[in-house]
Amino acid sequence: MAKIITISREFGSGGRELGKRLSEALGIPCYDHQIIELVAKEYGFDQNYVAHMSEKDIVAAYPSTIARGFLAPNYALQQSVQIASAQHRMIRELAEKGDCVIVGRCADVILDDMHPMNLFVYADQQSKVARCIARAAKDEDITEKEILKKIKQIDKNRAEYRKTFADGSWGRKENYHLCINTSGKEIKSLIPGIVSYIKAWYGEPS
Amino acid sequence: MAKIITISREFGSGGRELGKRLSEALGIPCYDHQIIELVAKEYGFDQNYVAHMSEKDIVAAYPSTIARGFLAPNYALQQSVQIASAQHRMIRELAEKGDCVIVGRCADVILDDMHPMNLFVYADQQSKVARCIARAAKDEDITEKEILKKIKQIDKNRAEYRKTFADGSWGRKENYHLCINTSGKEIKSLIPGIVSYIKAWYGEPS
Repeated sequence: MAKIITISREFGSGGRELGKRLSEALGIPCYDHQIIELVAKEYGFDQNYVAHMSEKDIVAAYPSTIARGFLAPNYALQQSVQIASAQHRMIRELAEKGDCVIVGRCADVILDDMHPMNLFVYADQQSKVARCIARAAKDEDITEKEILKKIKQIDKNRAEYRKTFADGSWGRKENYHLCINTSGKEIKSLIPGIVSYIKAWYGEPS
Repeated sequence: MAKIITISREFGSGGRELGKRLSEALGIPCYDHQIIELVAKEYGFDQNYVAHMSEKDIVAAYPSTIARGFLAPNYALQQSVQIASAQHRMIRELAEKGDCVIVGRCADVILDDMHPMNLFVYADQQSKVARCIARAAKDEDITEKEILKKIKQIDKNRAEYRKTFADGSWGRKENYHLCINTSGKEIKSLIPGIVSYIKAWYGEPS
């Protein structure tokens, strides 16, 4: 059985770092930004544009007037759907190659029939703010208030994006196999435990 | 730092077995029914009575007429509070002895200032029903419908009991350090992974 680990995460919880470190410890590839790069390359889009479009709520981008039949779907919506669909295909192609870790992008939903092991990474507000401050560029002058606003907005976008494709809510523990609270912890220190848990889950000796 | 592991669990998720096996693997005591036994002994109550009273909602047991000033608190309520308070004291006494696993009884809330590691064990409905059927006595003629009703009722009682003592909701992932989904898994098979995670969490080599 291929070991496909998907990681959903709250912004600032260290989920991306966790995915990267996990893939290194397991000796399997980690797909994160690569998905954006591949999609951008295929469609000739700018990477930042794809990143931006691929975490926005497709339905919210759809003007309500359209639903009422006044206008034809607009170009932004069309591109948003196109990018989402390209991402889906890319994620499936990557997962079909074999064992891997995939960070974000609703991979848990997209790969459901391939029975991935789905992790959710979260943390308390204090830890998320501290992590965001620590990783902000030195010359980036960002206040705690702005960080909190950013955390809230990005997580809202992720939840909305997921809603477009799946019934189950983003972050609801029932949708994941293991929910990891990283509050006050260094991600690095948790990796050996998570690796063992993953091996146990797949019935392998630790 | 004492290793105090609290386990909150959905009925039928295998949380009790997980606690017992975890304590064996870690070589530390597991307190579960012993708490009931100790409280029953101290107050000269029947064990079943204590077990029953200690997972009931204290507030709901308090007749609304009392709140309106018509009646003096009744005997059942008095006993319920007495048992809850004895349980609190007992849980603290046990935790102060050193490393341990404590199953249920709001130990995560009661021991908050001792910084326990709090686990939540859950599973999908199908797995919980299957587990309940498997552990029902052979001569116990219980239908799936009755099991589902029991699961719902017991989990409701647990949530209400917790509400009496703490702000945070029972089962809300933010209140726990690790949430473990046991759906379709043998508890035994997950233990090595959980043990490693606990060690990593406490900064010990695995």
